Amino acid sequence: MPELRKDIVIGRWVIISTERICRPDQFAEKMMDFKEDNNSFCPFCEGNEDKTPSEIFAIRKENSPPNTPNWEVRVVPNKYPALRIEGELRRRGLGMFDMMNGIGAHEVIIETPNHNLQMHDFSFEHFSKIIYVYKNRSLDLKKDLRLRYIMIFKNYGREAGASLFHSHSQLIATPVTPKRVKEELNGARTYYEYKERCVFCDIINQEIDSAKRIIYQNQYFIAISPFASRFPFETWILPLNHNPDFDAINEEEIKQLSEVMITILKKLNKGLSNPPYNFLIHTAPTRFLRPGYWQTIDKDFHWHIEIIPKLTRPGGFEWGTGLYINPVPPENACEFLKEVKI
Amino acid sequence: MPELRKDIVIGRWVIISTERICRPDQFAEKMMDFKEDNNSFCPFCEGNEDKTPSEIFAIRKENSPPNTPNWEVRVVPNKYPALRIEGELRRRGLGMFDMMNGIGAHEVIIETPNHNLQMHDFSFEHFSKIIYVYKNRSLDLKKDLRLRYIMIFKNYGREAGASLFHSHSQLIATPVTPKRVKEELNGARTYYEYKERCVFCDIINQEIDSAKRIIYQNQYFIAISPFASRFPFETWILPLNHNPDFDAINEEEIKQLSEVMITILKKLNKGLSNPPYNFLIHTAPTRFLRPGYWQTIDKDFHWHIEIIPKLTRPGGFEWGTGLYINPVPPENACEFLKEVKI
Repeated sequence: MPELRKDIVIGRWVIISTERICRPDQFAEKMMDFKEDNNSFCPFCEGNEDKTPSEIFAIRKENSPPNTPNWEVRVVPNKYPALRIEGELRRRGLGMFDMMNGIGAHEVIIETPNHNLQMHDFSFEHFSKIIYVYKNRSLDLKKDLRLRYIMIFKNYGREAGASLFHSHSQLIATPVTPKRVKEELNGARTYYEYKERCVFCDIINQEIDSAKRIIYQNQYFIAISPFASRFPFETWILPLNHNPDFDAINEEEIKQLSEVMITILKKLNKGLSNPPYNFLIHTAPTRFLRPGYWQTIDKDFHWHIEIIPKLTRPGGFEWGTGLYINPVPPENACEFLKEVKI
Repeated sequence: MPELRKDIVIGRWVIISTERICRPDQFAEKMMDFKEDNNSFCPFCEGNEDKTPSEIFAIRKENSPPNTPNWEVRVVPNKYPALRIEGELRRRGLGMFDMMNGIGAHEVIIETPNHNLQMHDFSFEHFSKIIYVYKNRSLDLKKDLRLRYIMIFKNYGREAGASLFHSHSQLIATPVTPKRVKEELNGARTYYEYKERCVFCDIINQEIDSAKRIIYQNQYFIAISPFASRFPFETWILPLNHNPDFDAINEEEIKQLSEVMITILKKLNKGLSNPPYNFLIHTAPTRFLRPGYWQTIDKDFHWHIEIIPKLTRPGGFEWGTGLYINPVPPENACEFLKEVKI
């Protein structure tokens, strides 16, 4: 059973995930264990449905039974889950330390049955289905009152943490609101208390005024190189209409989000020679249990997506200080990405 | 001139370092640019002193002039500094955003004239000289009242962010107290306000009582696998005697710290097949300018070293949440490292 432990100085939780335990001498091999070729066996390919845990959700051709071929997007539990859905949440102390058992969810969204297509290859229509699946899984997991936060993310390429080549994204739902998320929520709240405006709405307005960091824009979304980008070519996608919850997205917004996402991913792929990247959906936490604590969140938080190409390797300085060194000014990154023809 | 920019939501500063700017298409190459071989030219080798910026400090054989051979440890400015020492610190706004010019220091400590020795190969005596140099540089830079924090760290191996093979560590001094450092200081202060004891002293006492996570100990230092380790085989080295400032270390403590450091680095090297790693010295910020703000720091903060082997690759989840997934329980990591014979 995985467990969560809290760093007593910083207040940061970590997941000690015994599901993934391996012998120390296996680590060096593991680092090299990314299967890029097409010859090795892939559990995510169509026809291998029995090689994954039983599916949770899928978009399938009509009447095709679960765990068989004929699907377009498929969601399965992670075979080596960081957190597990079974059990009751128990917090306890261990001397001066705090821990709880590792309740949560860890799901894999297999984005396509086709081993050779990556996210930037998808049609808008297919991409819309993936976003629909993200929304669906998020709304479903929100019914579980033990869960406080749902993070949907993608690791693309070995350098970005992926261990399988077949295009997929992941969802992890946690019984705590993670530290980094809390910081963003608290920052947004503090700004709102001072200005009575959403900080993200203000960022959007300032970026539209200055026009120096807008990579792409359509009716409902804007893609920018953020002013204080930590990483070269870091890109944020924000909905122009204020909303704290990603999963409140409607059908028309899903279409437009697909268009922005594919545009940015194609530009990164072409302009930067297929770089590894992570993307993360920053959305509000579930707030059924503590309505008072999150009372202003509908006004002060604004969901958005961060896309982070992994072109530099953070070293000891970045780990120790949280102060990132970015060699590419965001204005130059924006200029460059705007120019990339796709 | 580099500049610092502040993320308005999180309050995190980033360094936009135009010194290191390169064309976007150079990134892919750069990732591969780690020179492990002995044939290519190395600016850190003895005899190539004129290929680095002019030295700031060195331990040399007597009467050997600066920037010539016959040194044991040598400090030079980073050729591509993240921050620059010249100029006056100016903070300013840019619409809603905050920035300042990139004042600071970025130095390289070349740990040995010998290209083929790594830190775990050094004698205790030689390692003591490196620690002495760290102390010396820290005390010297503290005289500059523009600087608020001095971070000494090492990136070993390409995966850990190193770009040169020749053994070296780095020092970056910043005009702001970095966010991650502030979190630790605030956490320690909050604990002290509640308990009237140093949280690190309490951790040391609890670890000695439980004896489950002590890897090594001598008269003045203890090396532990921390309870909430973020990474497999993460190791902290703490002085048993309370002190907020690394650079207050005395001669006898330097000797003993060398012994612990070399012991741990040898164990990691042998047990985990020469893994990439970072280490960082967490010390108190300079506090000349704001004595009130840091008034309890002498009592509540306790300097220490974090050693982080880079055996896993943090992905989107870790970036987005700050919640780390560690597949090796620290008790197992400790057990394993204790057993490694060196």
